[in-house]
Formats: sequence, structure tokens, C-alpha cells
Amino acid sequence: MPNIDLNSDLGESFGQWRMGDDAAMLDVVTSANVACGFHAGDPAGILRTVKAAAAKGVAIGAHVAYPDLVGFGRRNLDIADDELTADVIYQIGALQALAQSAGARVTYVKPHGALYNTIAHDRRQAQAVIEALKALDSSLVLVCLAGSPLIGWAREAGLTCVAEAFADRAYTPEGTLVSRKLPGAVLHDATQVGERMLRLVREGVIEAIDGSLARIEADSICVHGDSPGAVEMARALRQHLENAGVMPKAFTEIRA
Amino acid sequence: MPNIDLNSDLGESFGQWRMGDDAAMLDVVTSANVACGFHAGDPAGILRTVKAAAAKGVAIGAHVAYPDLVGFGRRNLDIADDELTADVIYQIGALQALAQSAGARVTYVKPHGALYNTIAHDRRQAQAVIEALKALDSSLVLVCLAGSPLIGWAREAGLTCVAEAFADRAYTPEGTLVSRKLPGAVLHDATQVGERMLRLVREGVIEAIDGSLARIEADSICVHGDSPGAVEMARALRQHLENAGVMPKAFTEIRA
Amino acid sequence: MPNIDLNSDLGESFGQWRMGDDAAMLDVVTSANVACGFHAGDPAGILRTVKAAAAKGVAIGAHVAYPDLVGFGRRNLDIADDELTADVIYQIGALQALAQSAGARVTYVKPHGALYNTIAHDRRQAQAVIEALKALDSSLVLVCLAGSPLIGWAREAGLTCVAEAFADRAYTPEGTLVSRKLPGAVLHDATQVGERMLRLVREGVIEAIDGSLARIEADSICVHGDSPGAVEMARALRQHLENAGVMPKAFTEIRA
Amino acid sequence: MPNIDLNSDLGESFGQWRMGDDAAMLDVVTSANVACGFHAGDPAGILRTVKAAAAKGVAIGAHVAYPDLVGFGRRNLDIADDELTADVIYQIGALQALAQSAGARVTYVKPHGALYNTIAHDRRQAQAVIEALKALDSSLVLVCLAGSPLIGWAREAGLTCVAEAFADRAYTPEGTLVSRKLPGAVLHDATQVGERMLRLVREGVIEAIDGSLARIEADSICVHGDSPGAVEMARALRQHLENAGVMPKAFTEIRA
Repeated sequence: MPNIDLNSDLGESFGQWRMGDDAAMLDVVTSANVACGFHAGDPAGILRTVKAAAAKGVAIGAHVAYPDLVGFGRRNLDIADDELTADVIYQIGALQALAQSAGARVTYVKPHGALYNTIAHDRRQAQAVIEALKALDSSLVLVCLAGSPLIGWAREAGLTCVAEAFADRAYTPEGTLVSRKLPGAVLHDATQVGERMLRLVREGVIEAIDGSLARIEADSICVHGDSPGAVEMARALRQHLENAGVMPKAFTEIRA
Repeated sequence: MPNIDLNSDLGESFGQWRMGDDAAMLDVVTSANVACGFHAGDPAGILRTVKAAAAKGVAIGAHVAYPDLVGFGRRNLDIADDELTADVIYQIGALQALAQSAGARVTYVKPHGALYNTIAHDRRQAQAVIEALKALDSSLVLVCLAGSPLIGWAREAGLTCVAEAFADRAYTPEGTLVSRKLPGAVLHDATQVGERMLRLVREGVIEAIDGSLARIEADSICVHGDSPGAVEMARALRQHLENAGVMPKAFTEIRA
Repeated sequence: MPNIDLNSDLGESFGQWRMGDDAAMLDVVTSANVACGFHAGDPAGILRTVKAAAAKGVAIGAHVAYPDLVGFGRRNLDIADDELTADVIYQIGALQALAQSAGARVTYVKPHGALYNTIAHDRRQAQAVIEALKALDSSLVLVCLAGSPLIGWAREAGLTCVAEAFADRAYTPEGTLVSRKLPGAVLHDATQVGERMLRLVREGVIEAIDGSLARIEADSICVHGDSPGAVEMARALRQHLENAGVMPKAFTEIRA
Repeated sequence: MPNIDLNSDLGESFGQWRMGDDAAMLDVVTSANVACGFHAGDPAGILRTVKAAAAKGVAIGAHVAYPDLVGFGRRNLDIADDELTADVIYQIGALQALAQSAGARVTYVKPHGALYNTIAHDRRQAQAVIEALKALDSSLVLVCLAGSPLIGWAREAGLTCVAEAFADRAYTPEGTLVSRKLPGAVLHDATQVGERMLRLVREGVIEAIDGSLARIEADSICVHGDSPGAVEMARALRQHLENAGVMPKAFTEIRA
């Protein structure tokens, strides 16, 4: 029976501000990308999320980011290599300790927002993130944008990579994401999303925006949970996969 | 031959701002209380300090603090228990990861500034810090103010404590610190400081401000390094102790 | 026809995090306490709130706070006088400029959260806030807790004060707030709240928690808007007052 | 007798961290670019600098920056237009209020670090800064890099610009700065610097790095004060100019 990982960004509340519905999403996903305090997440809130994830057997990853709370880590930052490497180690460590105190463990790293997009293609910053994982613990899996050069750079450096697809995004024939600025870039129909992801799991292809088939290697599917509609779509996707006999399972367990 | 630990606050630069002379102090002290980013210290700077400490064989402790950069962690903050516990775990973890990436290890925790002073006497906040260490790793040693109730609370909870004396501070007959607001609270004469600390090591007493002898149990001496004069006094103290046959050694090694 | 001011805390979103429903509340209140960036509010968001308030003719006040985003300004901070004075001036000025760029003006100051509660009774911090207003612009009105010593201190210093009552809070016979830790401290029945505030406007009394009548001098009523239920209660209160012939009006206009 | 403005970055300490020697520089410069809290400067420290500047009759400008304390505003940030506009208004307002409370006034704006460099050439971000000044107070003078397109954009928008040259930097034949990455980009000889700036004031030219003469229109000269050597060079430059009969004077006074 085939498996697939479902991951989502969690722990993104900050102090009195709420974001997303962590409890609901932890019933859907198999891997939780947990904010580490640089773009979102305060220690007490992160700890609550980590405990909830551990209680539900959801894998925990460090959702590391640029230091930019007000910009939610979505703004490109021209950060020096040594600063980026140390920032990433710092964030992973902070989450590791919170996880450990909850009897859990951080098994992977998924960069967030602008950092995620930048290192998918920018070799300098990618290298700085790779250095962080190698220096700290090279058994940490790095989650990368499917089809991006980052995958090659990380594997070359000896890291384990997992490529991910985005459930609600349109793809180009080359297997890259259609820019959010273009019409049709974001999908809103849960059934369509479910069908597309099922085909991805079974055949390794997604129908591109021009109707052709894009070949995409992905071991994980990213779903959103930052709105009631998003939670619903994520639930529907999981149901759709399960109905078709695809069992969601953390990639860290699939590999183990 | 008797030993004593010398500790100091390091890694307290932040971004472009310098504080203290870490390189000089790492030749003097045997334990480095390294800032964790909440009152001072940015990840890249902390990593540099940790690498330098590791290279010189100096023990590394987490100098955890209230989240207050602009106040340098010196302002009392009425923080909730769960927030304080999580903040402490977060900081220790961040430093542990930076230390690990430098081939080193965090062996103790010394709270900083207002947090240090508060938990010496405030049971609620003390308990929150104790919970942090127990939840994360109860082998972490907690450095406490000599003579404070914190020592009892921490030991009761199963933690290992090390009490510390302050080289340049006057003491009351009861073995507590003379308030900085009172005249004579801070000592400026290096020879006097050397003599006092030597006596502390050998006899377990310090001459109090009224001339009586205060009995103080301390396994570590805190020295400052945030001014050229402070570095000089720290150097002179070490020399004074060595000349008298007292060998500075990290308390973590003495105990081991 | 009698008037009363209705004020509420607005502009408390931060970056991607939403708090409250500013648009809804600006249809209810006559004075908007706008966050200034220290406990909540980022510049772009503050500007949006200020523009909306100006468009609806709602008076704008500076909701100054301790510098504590993660604690939402709700944690007591032992801040030095000169730091507090400068922090308050800084925040008022930032808001003044954003208001000015929107063609509006800041007419009053209402401290937030822990700062509000502290200066109601703590003379040292109260004096530091008073100094800020006097140094910057002594025509700025200071909103104070009804019945608190702050009112006397501020008037003594030559400032104009407006006392406020809290719509959804129980009062002691002495006219002070019942602690939130006690049962019955917070009221949830909109009709009851409407009746109580109407009586306050007409007779200057509120029925205290023991059934006696507490005399309270208040020129403004604080309503909350941080939950759908809170917005509903605020709307109902305004309707109740208007139905009884009491016209909500900004205190700054009442006085002018 | 010819005049020239000398400006420098001041108020860049933060909490317990010191940067530069504001007192010394206020005896040298005629215009103080005062940090506004986003890259450096805490309110109490800014107020001290503003008071000192006012006492010495030095003009006060808002040294606005990206929100990046740990990066000291030196890292490029891909900030949205409305965020940048509001950030700039917020910072100017905060400084205006601190200045007003000290009996002084903010007369100009000089963007800092990465923001300064970016808007010199990037039309989008430049426009966002220009909008801020226009929305708040279009009489505020904008200090721009001599020879940059920003000057034209700002004047086109109706703002008053002052162009500045850098005392210790080498220039290309086209009148632009030689990149710091190239050899010879930074000058260290005080006499050479004095001669160059004197010629700039008298003839409007600077000898470029290739020996040719670059024509540069500048109403202000930027000097640094962040090291003892820098203060010395600034002092020597002022002396050199005065000896030659050039009187340093704030550009705001020259224009008035």
C-alpha cells in the first residue's frame, strides 16, 4: 500500500496572536513544520504545539526562517553566510530542546517563506543552510521544493533531502510552481486537489497549467491550515487519499 | 592542591555592538556564561564565543535571561510560569546546538541579571526555572547565588547546584551581598579582591563589611570582563590564586 | 441631551497576525486607543487603523505600552524613569506622525495593559508618564482609571485627565475594579451592561458587587472588541445608550 | 565666505551597548543623523543625543532604516511599499516627538545603510520613502547620495534634496563611489581627505581613483565617528576646512 507524507506549518501563533488551528491540523498531517521564533512562535506556544504533535505521533520539523517577525519571514533578506548558518543552528536547537522536554525529537528541517524560496535557487544561501545542518546533525532531513537545484546541492553535501509538492498550487510543464502573480496559480477546488495529489502519488505526475503532464518527484505534500477553508481542504485531501488506499505517513517513518 | 572555578559573562555582543573582551577573558576564566540571545548575543556572535571557549577548554554555560534586549535583561519582568519555563528551555537549546556544532557541550545554566536576582528569592519563578532544567536535562548544573534559598529549592528538586561568590562585591555578616546602593558595595582594589577570594577558597569565609567573618560556601567565583579595568582585575585575581597554589578549574571538571 | 465617550483598543494586529475587528468597532466607539508598536501594531497596520478612524470621525489616542510584544504589554516591567518617559514620547510621536500623514491628530494618551494598571497606583512610574506628556505636549489628555490616585497626580502636574469606567467589569463598593481573579469580576450579559452604563451616565453610580451603590466619576466607557462576542456587546451598549437618549461623543469634543 | 555642512551618524548606541562618541562628534559636525530605533537607538538614548545636539546648535535629521537591529540596518530587505512608507513615517515621528520634548526640531531625513544604498537606485523603494515625506511634511529635506537618480526622483516629487559626498571614500570618474570591495575604496590619510574635501567645496570636483577629475555637486560631507580614528579624521577635516576659510554650517541654515 503506497504512503505519502502530509506536512503543514504549525506553531505560528505569537504571544496573544493566534494563527491557524494547530489542533485540527494535527489530525490531518503526518509532519508538523514548527515555527522556531524567528518568523513566528514564542517558546511557550511552540512547546504547546510540540506536545500536541508528540501526543498524536506527528513528526516534528524545524521551520527555520529569517529573523523578521513583523514580516513573518516572507521578505527577502540579504543575510551573510555566517549569520544565516548560525541563525539556522540556533533555531533548530531551540526547537530540539522544547521537543526533548516534551519527550519528542526534531527529525527534519523545512525552511520557511522567503528563506525557502531563496535557497531553492540561490547557491550561496543554500550552502549556508546546508552548512548548518552538517555542523549540527547531518541526520536531519532537509525538505526542499520539488525540482529545485537545492536538492542536488544538499545531496552532494551528504544530506538527506525530501522533495515536496504543494497541494493547492498550479505547476508549469517543467514541474515548477506557477507564480502566485499569474491567474490560476492557486487552486481552490478540494476535489480537484485530491485528484491531482492522488495521481502524483500513484504516477509521479501532475497536470500542468497548460494541460501537459509534469513529472514531479515528491515524498511529501504541503497543505495549509491558516484559514477554516484551508483546514477543510487539507481534511478532504487526506480523506481522498485514504479512500483510494494511500496511507498518509511521516516521510521519516517511511524511510526508517 | 585546592581548585576553584572562575566564571564570567561572555558572548554579550549583539550585531554591530561590542561588549566585553571575550578573547581576553577566556584566558582567565574556567567557565563561560554565554548569552543566549534574550538579553544579549546574536547567533553568529554566540557561535564565535562558543568556538573560542571550546578551543581554550573553557566550560560553557547557558546564561539565560528575560526577553529584554533593550534592558539587557536587567529589568524585573512579571512573567508567567509556563512562559519562563519555555523561555529557559528555548535558550538552553539554542546554545546547546551552537555548542554542538562547535564540538562542545553546555554543562551548566546560570540565569542572568534580573532573572538571577529574582529566582534567588522568588519561589514561583525559581520553580519555573527548575522545571525547565528538569524537563530538558537534569544533569545540567544550576549556578546559584551563595546563601540564597534557591539552592535548597533546586537541590530538593533533584538538581545539582553550584554556589558562587562575587569577587568584587562586599558581603554582609550573614553572607549575602551588600546592596549596590550602599557605599562600599563594590570593591576596586585588585589586591584586596585577591586576598579575599584566596581566603574564601582556603577557609570558606569572607570578611564582611562590618569586619566580622561571613561563612560562604562557594564553588565558583564570578568575575567581570565588561571593561578594561575589569579584565585586569580578573587577570590579577587568577594570578593571585595561582601564586598561592590554588589552581582555577571548571567546577564541572572538579565534580567529574 | 447627555453625552458619553466610548473608547476601545484598536490597531492591535501585528504583521500577519490579526486582532480584533477594527472596522466594526470604529462604527461603535467615539475614541480609538491606537497601539503604537510596543505591545502591538506595526506601522503599516497602525496607519490603516488611523485612516479608518479619521474617515469615521473617531478621536485618536496613543495606546502606549511597555516594550513587550510577546507579552502583549501585559507583564509588569520594572523600567527606569528616564526609559519610561522616553518610551512614551517615542510612541506618541510615532503615532502622531502616522495620524498627521492621514490628515488626523492624536488628542489623548491611554496607557495599555500592565502600564495602565501600574501607573494607576505607582507614583514613580506615573510621574514618568506624566513627564512625557508635559515634555511633549501638555494639551494631550490622559485617560485614567476612575477612582485611581493617578488622576490627582496628573491634575496636580497640570494635565487634563479623563476618567474611564469598564463596561463589562464588576466594581467594589469603593468604586474600584473587582479583581479578575474573583468570581463575577467580568460581566457577560449585554442588557445588564447596558443598564449599568446608562445609570452611570445619568446618576454617576454603578451597582457594586455587594449590591451597594458605588459613586464613579467617568467621562468615558471602555469597551472591548477582541472577540465577536465583545463586538456584539459593544454594539448593544451603544444602541442601549442611544435608545435612552444618550449620545456617544468623543470626550475631546465634549470638552471642546 | 563659503560654507559646507558636515553630517554624521549619531545616537547609534542601544541599551547597554555603546557606539561612537556622540559628544565628540557634536563638536565637529553641523548636522546629526540621529538613529530612530529601527537599526539602532533606544528612546532614552536617542533623547540624550537629541538634547546634546540641541544644546550645541547642531541640526537634527531622522536616520531612518529597515527594521533590523541585529543587522544594524545594513542588510537589504525586500519590503513592500506601504510597509516602507509607514516605517519611515513612524521613525520620523518618534524622533520628532523626542526632539520636540527637548525643544528642538527634525529638519531633514537621511536614510541609513542598506536603505540608503537601495533607494539611491531602486525607484520602487525610493518612491515609498518619498511618499512618506510628502505625506508627513514635505518641508523635510532628503539627504541623497551625490550623483544618484534618487535626487531627480525626489525633486520631481516636489521635495528638497541635499546631495552628500563621503569624506573618506574614493570616487569613480563618473562621480560615483568606488565599491568597498575594490582596493583604495576607503581613504585613511587625514590630510589627503582634507585636501579633497576643500577642493570639492571650492571647485565642485574630486580627484577620481584614475586621476581624472569627477564633478560632484554636494551640499554636505558625511564623516564617520564610530572609532577613535574616525573622530580624529573628522576633527582634522573640520580644522582643515576652517583654516582655509570654509565655515562648516548646517545645510538647513545655509538654505534658510
